Order: sequence, then structure tokens, then C-alpha cells
Amino acid sequence: MSSVELKNPALTSSSGGSVVVSVDAMGGDRGPTAVISGIAESAAENPDIRYIVHGPQAELERLIAQHSGLSARCTIRDAAGVVTMSDKPSQVVRNGDGTSMWSTIDSVRTHEASVAVSCGNTGALMALSMIRLRKLPGVNRPAIACLWPSRNPQGFNIMLDVGADIRADAPDLLQYALMGSAYCRNGLGVERPRIGLMNVGTEEHKGKAELKLAGELISKAAADANFEYIGFVEGGDLASSKVDVIVMDGFTGNIALKAGEGTAKLVGEFLKDAFSNSILSKFAALLAMTSLKRLQRRIDPRRVNGGVFLGLNGTVVKSHGSADSTGVAAAIRLAVQLVQSGFQDRLAARVAQSATSIEDGPEQSATAQQADQPVSENKA
Amino acid sequence: MSSVELKNPALTSSSGGSVVVSVDAMGGDRGPTAVISGIAESAAENPDIRYIVHGPQAELERLIAQHSGLSARCTIRDAAGVVTMSDKPSQVVRNGDGTSMWSTIDSVRTHEASVAVSCGNTGALMALSMIRLRKLPGVNRPAIACLWPSRNPQGFNIMLDVGADIRADAPDLLQYALMGSAYCRNGLGVERPRIGLMNVGTEEHKGKAELKLAGELISKAAADANFEYIGFVEGGDLASSKVDVIVMDGFTGNIALKAGEGTAKLVGEFLKDAFSNSILSKFAALLAMTSLKRLQRRIDPRRVNGGVFLGLNGTVVKSHGSADSTGVAAAIRLAVQLVQSGFQDRLAARVAQSATSIEDGPEQSATAQQADQPVSENKA
Repeated sequence: MSSVELKNPALTSSSGGSVVVSVDAMGGDRGPTAVISGIAESAAENPDIRYIVHGPQAELERLIAQHSGLSARCTIRDAAGVVTMSDKPSQVVRNGDGTSMWSTIDSVRTHEASVAVSCGNTGALMALSMIRLRKLPGVNRPAIACLWPSRNPQGFNIMLDVGADIRADAPDLLQYALMGSAYCRNGLGVERPRIGLMNVGTEEHKGKAELKLAGELISKAAADANFEYIGFVEGGDLASSKVDVIVMDGFTGNIALKAGEGTAKLVGEFLKDAFSNSILSKFAALLAMTSLKRLQRRIDPRRVNGGVFLGLNGTVVKSHGSADSTGVAAAIRLAVQLVQSGFQDRLAARVAQSATSIEDGPEQSATAQQADQPVSENKA
Repeated sequence: MSSVELKNPALTSSSGGSVVVSVDAMGGDRGPTAVISGIAESAAENPDIRYIVHGPQAELERLIAQHSGLSARCTIRDAAGVVTMSDKPSQVVRNGDGTSMWSTIDSVRTHEASVAVSCGNTGALMALSMIRLRKLPGVNRPAIACLWPSRNPQGFNIMLDVGADIRADAPDLLQYALMGSAYCRNGLGVERPRIGLMNVGTEEHKGKAELKLAGELISKAAADANFEYIGFVEGGDLASSKVDVIVMDGFTGNIALKAGEGTAKLVGEFLKDAFSNSILSKFAALLAMTSLKRLQRRIDPRRVNGGVFLGLNGTVVKSHGSADSTGVAAAIRLAVQLVQSGFQDRLAARVAQSATSIEDGPEQSATAQQADQPVSENKA
């Protein structure tokens, strides 16, 4: 297992047994070939993982047989139906039984698998996850959290929500702060995460009224939940070292994430143009190959592939629809790391105790504060 | 005048006389020194511009005297007050008389100058512009439009609103489409601009209800206003060659713009790191210097410095607060190009005729369609 991406030592220690990952082989832009190749990469780098793979039996058997030794680690669940990128979430919830996506989620629901991974339609995956896994007690709107390359020591900032729900009112944004803080502590090893609230300016009078209210709620919750609230941040702070977790509604988060990704891609293309411009620049590119490859790795979205659905009874990792085998392997790696950190149980405890704390008053705060510490306490 | 940035040949032809630009010397992060140096750069590249410069008389006289021949082309308007970045727009509107920003806008109001340029507080500048210049007949919410490097032949896409108003309902978004289309036609020389509406997905069922309504309104207006409506676009399409003008509310636009700018900056830093990593990579950087400089120019925000306020009785160009002399000169160049293209009068005609067209029915459409064609018709 690579320890480059996620630095928390707790994450690299095995939980003792093997982890079972439920993988949707269908629905990605590159089809099941890329997904099965990603499983093979994952299997090669970590012998402790077993896979339940969902899709058309015959096709999956054929693809898995192409990778030596892989079939022994995979259980195939036959599912003929495929959720496409254009399917409406509401239709998938009504008619999706029999699809590979439904089957993938159900393996987590029945506790056969500890975590689910899919490259499919995000909206459908979230809708199915909500219906089949149900929301954690105390959570109103689940969120999708993703990692963004940053100037921080841990190498990443967490952004949420990046598209689970286009709406979020002030109490929802507070929950995003609690969930993002737990993810940052357990996933990135940041003891006391700094939370920022996305707005169009850092001054207190800027932005929407509901953001002012959310800021007040988050600020009040900071001491109990053991995070620091740093106030408003701006779009330019995605990679900032002054913040660890950036909270926003899913409409804003989706557009900010894609604007950032699109710009990184644009600059990468401009860079390629610049280096193919003359004989001299081509020669320079050859000389600088190692450095350029290092740069490419730093801005490669496949390296941080995987949005995590937060706020459900079970962990679901959404891989990019266009993920290749490396991207799929990265998403599985993230899924396994979250399982091994005991993140899901800690998050559930955090949200439940925070809800209790709000109902029962501040005397509950000592218990709540210990809920998701990254130490070897009992899980739930 | 450089013709690299804006390719419409109409823009590089002189209007016959000199253009008077009203420049706020105060309120930028780098103070009046950078602004006066920017004016000097602008004066050196274009002999047809005169400047009314606003700020403390003695200081401005001293700074202008440092540039040979500049004082003959500048009129100083003494203004002791300065609007700071932290001043609230509402306060500036009440108490801002006597500030350099107020005085700068008033030179356009009294028609002494054709266009205003300021590096100051965006919110205050928009509030003052609205109060002193007033909105164009038919416009509900003015917008700030900016240029974004793109893969299009014209080299840029237009984004609006990037921060004039955090709200926009469907009819406002329609007006942004009309204004952005006029700016694109007259400013970038695109005969029939393609308009996209920013959303979290391109499918018709995605996103907020008000965006669906806005899409219908924009689609209906497309034929009369001579643009093409291409439907929803996403954050990743800022630089896309499938669209020329991207329409969104000012909250979304501000965050998308800053997320893109911040990412370009991050990748630039990573690139610098990559090339200072080893002796070999440093040598490669030396060899590739010309290509790297070309890349830097392509992603340099100073090159496209200047958000344009659309929907007012007068043109105001907002330069970046952190603009240096090159950035200020670029903002003045954009301001002069807009004046020389007759953009303001064409925009006014477009919005007024569009409003008439909506009131009077489709028989007005032939007139409306001719309102902002980039030909040498009479202005207004």
C-alpha cells in the first residue's frame, strides 16, 4: 500500500484481517475492462483485500481470467442491468434492482463487504446509497467529500459537499463541518482540522445571509468537536495552507471542483504546447522529463481519485467516471484505508454525539470530544 | 496598441479623436505608484489617450512628474479620501463623496471621460457606479464580465456575472446572456456567440429549477438577439471551445473564477518546484526559458486584467486590486478598446430593443437584431 497519498500512520496498519470491497464493474466511461484492471492493480499492491465484483457474470469471468491469480480473490455477483450516465436518479431508485450499482450497494447493506466503490452515475449512486443504506442518525443531507492538492503538510485539503445535494442550509453546513473534520482527522491525520466556509469574500459582511448563520453555528460547535473555525474562505483558497476542510453547498462545490480541475488540465495542455514549440524546447523537455513527470503526478487527478459519501450507514467511494485502471486502483486504496482507520464508526459516533450534545446541552461535550480521536480506542 | 489580446480589427481602428479615460489612482493594493506607472505605460503605447487622474493632488503631481511628458496628458482631480478594501459598499455610497473612487465615476457621469478604470474595492465600485451612473433602462441587475483564457480561436471566453450581485433569478440570467453576447460580439469579434448556462451537469434535468427556467428564456431570445444557446455547461467548461459566453449568478461566478485562478497559480508553483529540483532540471529550465516564458504569458492574469461592469449608463473597468503597472496598462487598454468599438451605445440599444421586443411582441425583432452588429453603423 502506498503511503505517499495519505500520511496518517494509523491508516497503513492492517486491521488484522482482510478487507472486503464491493466493486461496481459497470457504468464507468471505460467499461468493465478498466475496472477489472484496476482491481488487478489493487490486488497486486495489497494482498489483504478481497473483492465482490458486480456485473454480467460471463463478461466479468472472462476479464478476471486475464489477470493471473485474480479469480481466487474475486466473488462475482451476476447483474445484467447497467445504470448509465444519463439515467435519472429517481428512475434508478424505482427500477434499478438488478443493476450492478444496486447490487454493489447491497453488499455493504448486508455487511458482506465493508465498503463500496463505483465509477458510475454520481446522482444515481448517491440516491441508491441513501435509499439502501439510509442516512446516519442525526444527518439531514449526506455529502460528497473530495481531496484537493494543497500547500498543507498533509498534501491535500478536503472539499465538501461537491455534488451530493445542490441545496444546503445553515444546519446542513454545520453537519458538513462535523463530517469533514472527522474525515480530515481520521483520513489525513490532522489532529485539529481548520474549517473554512466558502464565500465570495473573507469579510464578515460578505455573501449570503445563510452563510453568516452557518458561520455562527460552526463557530459555536468548534470547541466541542475539536476543530478550529477560521471563518470565510474564497475560491482561491482551495489549495490554501490556511485551511484543511472547505465547507460549501453541493452546487457551489461541484462548480468550484470542476473549475479547478478544468484549469489544471488547461495549464497542462499549455505546458505541452510550450515544450513542443521548438527543437530547443523539445530537447529541454527530454532533459526535464523526470521533473515534468513529477509535476504530472502532483496534478494528476487519478492520484486523488475518489469522492467519499459522508453521512450514510456505510462507506461508498465514488470514482471518476473516466477513471482508468490507475484511477480505479486509487479509489479502492482510499476505500480500504478508510475501512482500516475505523472511520465509519468514528464518524457515526461523532454525528450521534453531536446531535445528543445539541439536545442535552454542553455537559455532553467531554464525551463528544473523544468520539473520533485517531487513537486505538474501541470502535463504537 | 497590442492586437494580441483582442482580435477584432474594428477595435484597433481609432475613433478619430482622442479617448479620455478617468483613472482612480488610489485603492489598489500597490498604491498610486503602480497606477501612475501603468498610465505611463499606456501613454507610451497609445498617443491617442488622455487621462483624468483622481487622488491627492500633491502626491499625484510628484508621481506623474517622474514620467517624462506624462503631465501634459494628465488632468489631476484632487480627492483626499480613499475607499479601502474593507469599506462596506453601503457606507461608501453614503459617505464616499470626496474619495478618488467617487470622483473617478463622476468624470464618466458628466461625460468628461468616456470610461472609468479603478483597482479599488469591487463592491464599493459597483455600488457607486450604480448610484452615480444608474442602470441602463431595461436592466435589473448589472453584472461584472471577465475574460478567461480558452481554447477558442478568439483566445478567451467571457464569464458573467463574476461578482456584481450574489443573486440572479431567471430574467436576470437572460439579461446576462444578452449583455454577454453583445460584449462578445463587439469586444471579441464573434459574430454569433454561443451562450452556455453554468450548472452542475449538462443534462436537462440537472440543477436548480430557476436554471431550467433561465435556459428556456435564453433559448427563446436566441434568434432575435443573434446568438446560439448551447444549454448547460459545467465548471470544467470555463476554457472550453464549445462555448463563448458562460452565464451564471455572481456568487457562483466569483467562486468559479477564483477557483480557476487559484489552481493556475498552484500549478505554476508546482512547475517552478519541478524545475528547481536538480541540476539537470535547472539546466533544462534554462534551455526551455523561451517556452516557459510563453507559457507564463498565456496564463498570466495581468494580460486579461479588467472586469467590465455591464448594464450601466457608462463603462467602468475594474482592474485587479493587486494589479501592477502592466496590469493597470492592460485594464486601460481594454477600456479604450471598448470605447473605440462603440460598445456602450450598442449594448444600450440591444438591451432597450430587447425590452421593447418583449413588450411589443416579435415584430420588433428585425430592428433588435441589427442593434449591436459589429459594422460601421451610426451609434445609438
